[in-house]
Amino acid sequence: MRVFGIDCGTEFTGFGVVETCDSGREPRLIMKAMGAIRLPKSKTMPERLEQVFNELTVELERWQPDAVAIEEVFYSVNAKSALKLGQVRGVALLAAARLRLPLAEYAPLKIKSSVVGYGLAKKEQVQFMVARLLDLAEVPQQADAADALAIAICHIHTAETLALQGIRQ
Amino acid sequence: MRVFGIDCGTEFTGFGVVETCDSGREPRLIMKAMGAIRLPKSKTMPERLEQVFNELTVELERWQPDAVAIEEVFYSVNAKSALKLGQVRGVALLAAARLRLPLAEYAPLKIKSSVVGYGLAKKEQVQFMVARLLDLAEVPQQADAADALAIAICHIHTAETLALQGIRQ
Repeated sequence: MRVFGIDCGTEFTGFGVVETCDSGREPRLIMKAMGAIRLPKSKTMPERLEQVFNELTVELERWQPDAVAIEEVFYSVNAKSALKLGQVRGVALLAAARLRLPLAEYAPLKIKSSVVGYGLAKKEQVQFMVARLLDLAEVPQQADAADALAIAICHIHTAETLALQGIRQ
Repeated sequence: MRVFGIDCGTEFTGFGVVETCDSGREPRLIMKAMGAIRLPKSKTMPERLEQVFNELTVELERWQPDAVAIEEVFYSVNAKSALKLGQVRGVALLAAARLRLPLAEYAPLKIKSSVVGYGLAKKEQVQFMVARLLDLAEVPQQADAADALAIAICHIHTAETLALQGIRQ
């Protein structure tokens, strides 16, 4: 299974591709790609949205994931920020929809507890565990890319749990 | 000048095309098209966003406007609504950007005062004046289409004011 995680933001939109590898005793997680799309403030909002859409489309076409995973939105932000974030999120969902890729959404608490073990983990703990689960030499420098990898890992863990439940039933 | 107005909404996204006609003594406004894209609740959000994007793209390509006008957002809505509206707005801005169409944004107060004469006009007054300014036989049934026409008219009035100011300078 190959999962493409997206972490939407109005300055940086992170992405990360994680694959499961069943060659050993237990499924291993492999980081295939990660990055962050920077949205320069010098550009207008429509230009920025087009850039996110185009770059995400290129990466999705390149990696052909089995699923796209994205964070559900955190409503503690104010309406102005929510609108801006919504605009970026809209074009990210569109990019996935146009390529007919299945989409899954996860709440921030669920993502953290899936990666670290509890939902109130700090950002640094999530990044540390992402690096550890993916056998990376160091914690990803780009926080948004690390968050996107965490979202992809959350989807894989959730899918595995569902598969196990299926066996038990 | 031909202007394409868009009124974004999470249930209906209205659009309206208004053209100026200089054949008579004064520029007259002509309604070339109007409609509303319905986003069925039975569809997933990515599917709805794809539908808005595709239908707006078809209309923009058909009408080849000189400019696209859109409402600035009204922040009195809560963060959850703002995020949903932002997603629709994001794909609408993307549709305009991908066709390299100039985009103008107007505050709700500005749109109302441009069409009715004062910013705190009621929705029905705006719709009545839209029908009158465009010489329509009746008030448009679809409120969202009427709002989109109002946004297009606002852009034309603003452009005319700027042109007059240019002459005076």
